[in-house]
Amino acid sequence: MISLDKLQFTVNQLFEKENLLAEPVELYEPIKYTINLGGKRIRPFLVLLSCNLFDKEIEKAYNSAIAIEIFHNFTLIHDDIMDNAPIRRGKETVYRKWNSNIAILSGDTMFALAYKYFLKTELNNISEILNVFNNTAIEVCEGQQYDMNFETANKVSIDDYLKMIRLKTAVLLGCSLKVGAIIGGASNKDKENIYNFGVNLGIAFQLMDDLLDVYSDETKFGKKTGGDIVANKKTYLYLKTIELANTDILNKFYHFLDADIDENEKIKGVINIYNDLNIKQHTENEMNKYYDEALKYLNKLSINSEYKNVLVSFANKLMTRDK
Amino acid sequence: MISLDKLQFTVNQLFEKENLLAEPVELYEPIKYTINLGGKRIRPFLVLLSCNLFDKEIEKAYNSAIAIEIFHNFTLIHDDIMDNAPIRRGKETVYRKWNSNIAILSGDTMFALAYKYFLKTELNNISEILNVFNNTAIEVCEGQQYDMNFETANKVSIDDYLKMIRLKTAVLLGCSLKVGAIIGGASNKDKENIYNFGVNLGIAFQLMDDLLDVYSDETKFGKKTGGDIVANKKTYLYLKTIELANTDILNKFYHFLDADIDENEKIKGVINIYNDLNIKQHTENEMNKYYDEALKYLNKLSINSEYKNVLVSFANKLMTRDK
Repeated sequence: MISLDKLQFTVNQLFEKENLLAEPVELYEPIKYTINLGGKRIRPFLVLLSCNLFDKEIEKAYNSAIAIEIFHNFTLIHDDIMDNAPIRRGKETVYRKWNSNIAILSGDTMFALAYKYFLKTELNNISEILNVFNNTAIEVCEGQQYDMNFETANKVSIDDYLKMIRLKTAVLLGCSLKVGAIIGGASNKDKENIYNFGVNLGIAFQLMDDLLDVYSDETKFGKKTGGDIVANKKTYLYLKTIELANTDILNKFYHFLDADIDENEKIKGVINIYNDLNIKQHTENEMNKYYDEALKYLNKLSINSEYKNVLVSFANKLMTRDK
Repeated sequence: MISLDKLQFTVNQLFEKENLLAEPVELYEPIKYTINLGGKRIRPFLVLLSCNLFDKEIEKAYNSAIAIEIFHNFTLIHDDIMDNAPIRRGKETVYRKWNSNIAILSGDTMFALAYKYFLKTELNNISEILNVFNNTAIEVCEGQQYDMNFETANKVSIDDYLKMIRLKTAVLLGCSLKVGAIIGGASNKDKENIYNFGVNLGIAFQLMDDLLDVYSDETKFGKKTGGDIVANKKTYLYLKTIELANTDILNKFYHFLDADIDENEKIKGVINIYNDLNIKQHTENEMNKYYDEALKYLNKLSINSEYKNVLVSFANKLMTRDK
């Protein structure tokens, strides 16, 4: 089996070799720009890793790995318009650098390009990976819509939230692994198990993301903490607070959410409430629940223990990132 | 072979039976709204018609017919954002009725839904229709980008324009016919010929659209004529004028394009120039060139003459529409 480092190197190489520029340049420049921004390339990495668990020849998964990363970047371009996000991976977002129309259309083109790369994958039953991917793509859109709904919703339950992050983030990790497994020739049971491993790991990953916004070393995390608090983002921490707080604390919490309050005072105040209610521990418990669930599925896989250990060390690495 | 009227009825029925509403409703309501706006349903009609030329059982083409119409409607939703269009088929456009974010995301979902319906098509080699469709989808995006480029471009040639309408409009008609032919089991030659029939007919159709904006009976055409003139739209008529006009006429033409001029005066003035330069005739010549080219491909098809006549009468109907 290929080492994780070698695999990461291979993944990065994939995109250096691809020529994504075509005519009209106004359409393809933003596509090239977005793909060249890099990022961690977790999803194509998962495609190749998963394929490699079942088959030595990972080359046949290259096109699907590229496809999933292009799809993921398409969702980022459109999400950034919807979220008015100025910066992505330290650079201007596409709709800011160009404009919304360009961002819409380049995004649409990337969605089509994702299918184009999938269709290049040599496989007897291409519709199997296309079905998995396509259902996932629809779920990702649904997840983004729920996320947008939450911004203005009066009441969002923890269950609503978990469903949202499952759709918006987690299923694409499961999909990446499943696609790799299909290409690697895994059994139907293994395909399902590795999918569920990915989905549960994805939920744990997102919960950790919520935690890191508040409880992380700013110098390591690389961005200012408290951003979610300032934006009144309905994260797991926020929603758990609403669930657990009594009327007094709740009033204090809502007071801090008020827009008129100084930013640093707000962050400090909200974190105090989180600490009073032990929100960090609650979130870690939930995160660990999903992480353990992921490992349960991992252990069900009919691959040898050495390979399982590789997956476990990937999962650990993902969950201990400083981002 | 099924009559054109019966086929149109079947096409309309297809969408009445589909339940496009799902959760979250904020995402799917605009999708249902858009599909229910109706329209002529030319593309799904072409899928079934083409399938029927080669196979009696058109039921197997239903899902692909639905897929292509959903895709077409997705492009309209996104185009309407980009074009700031308030009205589509007599009703508010999605981004106006809801908002741009909803229009972006519902559109994205429709693009994925199109593939979902294609994937439901029972066919030994599903990747054949997916490849045709996917390449077409990319071309349609490219066409829309060229169209947007033209708005601010100083110089647009007739060739540029013909390329743009080929990509933006014509290839999807060719694709619809080719997909139907693939499902109907046509030979490779017939697939190519019917595709080229569709593309050439599509270009002729778009040129007629340019003509109808200026030279049509308003009561029959159903919308005010001269809209393209008021908007300074670089249609075939506009570009042919630039090509043929001498400096004097060109200066007069540019004078009328000036924004400070009264709308009716502008329309009248531009039409006078068109008439002086015989632009109507020039456009009709170009249109007929593509129409004749379409018929050439039609005649190459290895189907009996009765079936060819059905296609010809469809083409005639399309080209004599009062819209």
